[in-house]
Amino acid sequence: VIIYGRNPVKEALRGRRAATVEDVWATAGAAREAWLTNPFGVGARVEGLPDVAGLRVASAREIENRCGSPDHQGVCARIGSYPYAPPDELLAREGVIIALDQVQDPQNLGSICRTAECAGAAGLVIPERRAAEVTPAACKASAGAVEHLRVARVRNLADFLAEARAAGFWCYGASALGDPEGRTPVSYDAPTYDGGVVLVLGSEGRGLRPRVAAACDELVALPLRGHVRSLGVGAAAGALLYEILQRREAALDKAP
Amino acid sequence: VIIYGRNPVKEALRGRRAATVEDVWATAGAAREAWLTNPFGVGARVEGLPDVAGLRVASAREIENRCGSPDHQGVCARIGSYPYAPPDELLAREGVIIALDQVQDPQNLGSICRTAECAGAAGLVIPERRAAEVTPAACKASAGAVEHLRVARVRNLADFLAEARAAGFWCYGASALGDPEGRTPVSYDAPTYDGGVVLVLGSEGRGLRPRVAAACDELVALPLRGHVRSLGVGAAAGALLYEILQRREAALDKAP
Repeated sequence: VIIYGRNPVKEALRGRRAATVEDVWATAGAAREAWLTNPFGVGARVEGLPDVAGLRVASAREIENRCGSPDHQGVCARIGSYPYAPPDELLAREGVIIALDQVQDPQNLGSICRTAECAGAAGLVIPERRAAEVTPAACKASAGAVEHLRVARVRNLADFLAEARAAGFWCYGASALGDPEGRTPVSYDAPTYDGGVVLVLGSEGRGLRPRVAAACDELVALPLRGHVRSLGVGAAAGALLYEILQRREAALDKAP
Repeated sequence: VIIYGRNPVKEALRGRRAATVEDVWATAGAAREAWLTNPFGVGARVEGLPDVAGLRVASAREIENRCGSPDHQGVCARIGSYPYAPPDELLAREGVIIALDQVQDPQNLGSICRTAECAGAAGLVIPERRAAEVTPAACKASAGAVEHLRVARVRNLADFLAEARAAGFWCYGASALGDPEGRTPVSYDAPTYDGGVVLVLGSEGRGLRPRVAAACDELVALPLRGHVRSLGVGAAAGALLYEILQRREAALDKAP
């Protein structure tokens, strides 16, 4: 695949699929910049990586034709397809996992991946069908975060939540409205969020599907103090993930 | 102007420029829905508003031609230009104000307006130049929140911050990196955020301009626990505004 944009290419040269970078094209201006000509710092060299100093200079139009987007910022790269992680790998240690229920917009997927990576999440899970995948557009929206974050695809999200619970994780479903079985969400700042945590976020507009909500241990809601009845999924991810990070780090500070 | 999309039109019929709605076009399907044929509930009627029951049915293609976007969801409306609020009005009471320093993307502006409205902010301030305005695309991205939130435009953001400080507001600049004068940001969960608060968020990629950072009382930073060195401005707004809301409401609960 062809990824594009400064941060996506920069992080790809350091990330989980760095060894699969085949070619890099950059405009004359971008090709002079240090992060591209010497991405690993003075004298550094990483085994198995192409010699990025030998990158090819191309016009902005050639780059746009190669990547199919005007948002390339003067650089694109040919790289192996996205290396999805096995779902089991995410459950191997007690971290924070984000599960997205049918988020369809690659921009939303990418920006949530960026937030998850910044907040130190262990990984992110998406369903195989009817959901945005880690396309080059999602890579761009993530500012390259997908090159470091583990993203896994699962056939059935409710089944994955059951496996996570069996592995000792606690599953929190973000839901302003409660689920169809009439469970009431608690305020998002009530749980302690310790141990293994899965945070489940619903699709734009429709929220969690009933089976997915039912597979959660607890529903959490952000307060709404205005007229609009729901937050965007990207903003909700920011508010919830930083609350979870804050709680977990405060608990670590208190631990003996 | 022509606004488009279900939530934008729905909120426009109840919001600050409701009296300026002139025409509504909807597809046959959308025109049958209760929120559009009787937007104020059974028997209700609002003085000065057009009779929305007399809306015009149009094809999806006609609606797309009128609004110039495929994202219309079957409905668009002709409405007065966006009623920016006078900046003084935002400073009249001790609320939370968001100030955006040169955010250029209407999608980001819209989604931050949505978060601000949901978190109960008193208003949002944008510079007159080199910044996204409240266009119909921003209205759509805000899910109609701009119809309720007060948005003000100022000639100079640093001057506005000085006025806000003179009026007793405390200005917090969101900055992961500190400002050029070498001030170090405190962690975002350190301040109490009581009284009048202005939260200043920088542009995508470049952060706060030096003059704007210098006009802040204090810089605050969200922790970054991954490889990517900055959050998206929409996710940062979500994390910071909900932290501020949580602190303020906790203080109210404790007050005698």
